[in-house]
Amino acid sequence: MIKAINHIAIVVPDFESALPFWQDALGLQLSHTEDVPSQAVEVAFFPMGDSEVELLRPTTPDSGVAKYLAKRGAGMHHIALEVDDIYAMLARLKEKGVRLINEQPVPAAGGKLAAFIHPEAANGVLVELYQVG
Amino acid sequence: MIKAINHIAIVVPDFESALPFWQDALGLQLSHTEDVPSQAVEVAFFPMGDSEVELLRPTTPDSGVAKYLAKRGAGMHHIALEVDDIYAMLARLKEKGVRLINEQPVPAAGGKLAAFIHPEAANGVLVELYQVG
Repeated sequence: MIKAINHIAIVVPDFESALPFWQDALGLQLSHTEDVPSQAVEVAFFPMGDSEVELLRPTTPDSGVAKYLAKRGAGMHHIALEVDDIYAMLARLKEKGVRLINEQPVPAAGGKLAAFIHPEAANGVLVELYQVG
Repeated sequence: MIKAINHIAIVVPDFESALPFWQDALGLQLSHTEDVPSQAVEVAFFPMGDSEVELLRPTTPDSGVAKYLAKRGAGMHHIALEVDDIYAMLARLKEKGVRLINEQPVPAAGGKLAAFIHPEAANGVLVELYQVG
């Protein structure tokens, strides 16, 4: 049911200081940036293979991502695993007693459906389920 | 020069407590485990698409990974980006003044060549360059 690592998301304070490493030093291609008001972030997308590195820049001071940045500094925020049926996966996880942040899918970048699993259930990693199809 | 996210590595205290989430709840296929004495870890590999999730279990109490686990708890340890020519990429990064942990490639799991970039250069993320071919 899980097909790929869709993306890894890295929280950064601003793009001006973050882009030079990923774009100029590593030579990754920036495909586009997108404002995602539902998550209060602007996202810079670097596709590679069947995955992406995404840089998240908080656009408000009081969102979850902004608080994470204020508390822990820049760094890994979450990983997103691509699923073919997010409803079936959420039902499976609920049945197995896995702690979820979103019991129902929420809208994500690109109009996709996503749901977060609680880091306590996933060895301290914030895992996003992400339905592409 | 960067072709894919080769893997994301998650440090865990032991496999007994970590495998149930990744294997049983998410339904990922464990391909194999491998002892990597050079990094003082045992690694559990979960391939998906052209990437892998890797669980790292420290095998000694005083390695870098063991200290990371003791200090920060279980969670994301590093991301590995697949390059076709690790020597060329390291030369490029040195020329651009990027701070490196390994100025020369070191042996990694599967007999591959790897080199780590310092998290200070990469928005707090420990980035591994990983040459597969």
